[in-house]
Amino acid sequence: MASDETRGPIALIGLDWGTSRLRAYLFDAAGTVIAAKAHPWGVLAMPDSDFGAAYAAITGPWEKVAPGVAVIAAGMIGSTEGWVRAPYVPCPAGPRELGAALVETKVGNGRLFVIPGVDQHAPQSDVMRGEETQIAGALALRPELAAGATLILPGTHAKWAAVHDGRIVSFTTYMTGELFALLRDHSILGRPARKAAAQGETNRVVAWEAFDRGVATARDSGTRGIAPVLFGTRSLVLHEELRARDSLDYLSGLLIGDELRSALSGIPQQPALIGEEALCDRYARALQSFGASVTIVPDSSAAGLWSVACAAGLAAPAATHV
Amino acid sequence: MASDETRGPIALIGLDWGTSRLRAYLFDAAGTVIAAKAHPWGVLAMPDSDFGAAYAAITGPWEKVAPGVAVIAAGMIGSTEGWVRAPYVPCPAGPRELGAALVETKVGNGRLFVIPGVDQHAPQSDVMRGEETQIAGALALRPELAAGATLILPGTHAKWAAVHDGRIVSFTTYMTGELFALLRDHSILGRPARKAAAQGETNRVVAWEAFDRGVATARDSGTRGIAPVLFGTRSLVLHEELRARDSLDYLSGLLIGDELRSALSGIPQQPALIGEEALCDRYARALQSFGASVTIVPDSSAAGLWSVACAAGLAAPAATHV
Repeated sequence: MASDETRGPIALIGLDWGTSRLRAYLFDAAGTVIAAKAHPWGVLAMPDSDFGAAYAAITGPWEKVAPGVAVIAAGMIGSTEGWVRAPYVPCPAGPRELGAALVETKVGNGRLFVIPGVDQHAPQSDVMRGEETQIAGALALRPELAAGATLILPGTHAKWAAVHDGRIVSFTTYMTGELFALLRDHSILGRPARKAAAQGETNRVVAWEAFDRGVATARDSGTRGIAPVLFGTRSLVLHEELRARDSLDYLSGLLIGDELRSALSGIPQQPALIGEEALCDRYARALQSFGASVTIVPDSSAAGLWSVACAAGLAAPAATHV
Repeated sequence: MASDETRGPIALIGLDWGTSRLRAYLFDAAGTVIAAKAHPWGVLAMPDSDFGAAYAAITGPWEKVAPGVAVIAAGMIGSTEGWVRAPYVPCPAGPRELGAALVETKVGNGRLFVIPGVDQHAPQSDVMRGEETQIAGALALRPELAAGATLILPGTHAKWAAVHDGRIVSFTTYMTGELFALLRDHSILGRPARKAAAQGETNRVVAWEAFDRGVATARDSGTRGIAPVLFGTRSLVLHEELRARDSLDYLSGLLIGDELRSALSGIPQQPALIGEEALCDRYARALQSFGASVTIVPDSSAAGLWSVACAAGLAAPAATHV
């Protein structure tokens, strides 16, 4: 999407400001990203919690070129632990609802608009913040998904969102990524791999056979789920039926497989994956093992920021393709 | 069981030597515990990994009174990370199989016998080490369970063991305790309670209402399991539908409830709980919410050490009740 060709003047600055990193985009009037930067200044990784300084360092040079340009931001920056609190909007929510609930604040000589997260109280209590914008972007990039689809966003807190008529109607968080990291770094299950790594024995590529085995074990665990087989990650190594260096890929397969087993108990409409390529590859492969085929949507953060800005009247969609 | 009345001479020293602590018992010829000590010298908490020094400090004074007395030990001390490796015996295993597979070693002028753990390869790969001895003790204390029962040992790695004719025929490990500790100490789910605790807001007693709510949520999660509702521990707090200080008891209920949901998918014979009182209380209450009643067996480590020693001929069961 990034291009050197500028169609029209600078129209918008967009910030995808999450827990662990901050990505910034400069858009021309056609919605094309004409410059992009990334920083490790996530909301929970901010030097001296000085959001203002980070903001000025990133937007300053761009605002100098385009004085008064609007800045739109999504992600944890709008949470209670962030900078400008943007309360959740309820489901169903799409670009129009998000755009109508932007929280505006004056920063220096400019205006910052923060996109709210989305929450739901039923069927279960859940919240998202940042993913609503990625989803808006995915629907802009792949309009054929807007009528009805299941969008899957793997990650620390994976989200499964049911979309209907361009809006998120319900969603579920799976803590798969955080559970994997906790078990890898702190539990007895990660010990064999940690020991192997200390002896220089690590895999440079994914041990797909071990991953597939974990997925299949979770898939076949039926109504009992993976609770009774999770400890097997250790006992298989003790029994020399799984190599220590492959055990984390087995564990990854188990956890992703349990997520799919649980989420696929209904029949999802048009599943589509959004997110980091390596992680999407794991999910696509695991979905295949469940007999489901899936579309992979490219990185959609910038498209989502643009889409919500247009819905809010901060940018003009009609300017596209002039 | 502890008593000052010594029936016959000193007959055995027993060690329950686990990951985080070491408990030692002195038995008379009737199998009565006439002295007991506890130390924080667990296998993974050993000063300078000097097992020999810890062993001498504990057994030395007793061996002086009863030279040549046999010492029997159970637990992680027999693992690859312990002191004297005692390979696993397969299921089915009871006192006779364990007694026949003791690993004998000379220490100073005395003899140490290490009880092996038990492993299984089907229906799933699993191992136990230490619990086999607690189970042998529970069956000695409650002989009516020996014909057929499900013994539940809550803890870091909870075990559910199916017993038939006095032997363990199959078992399953649930990582409930370790998962709870990881999520409490390191995950986003524990953050509200950690923050509340830092502000001096902690519960001195269990928030049973929150615990029960967690159990019921897990129980009613059906085939999907708790994967889709785990993150609710956070969103309920954000939605002010759960107090931060109660959130860990809710999480405890969710995790124990998921263990029960999974394990009770079959119909267990005579469920009986063995272990620490506070934890057994939680399990008994949760089991009630699943419509299952349960027996609680008192601490059975010493009885198990004596039972295996008798089966191995190191002590004489006939001496009981003389």
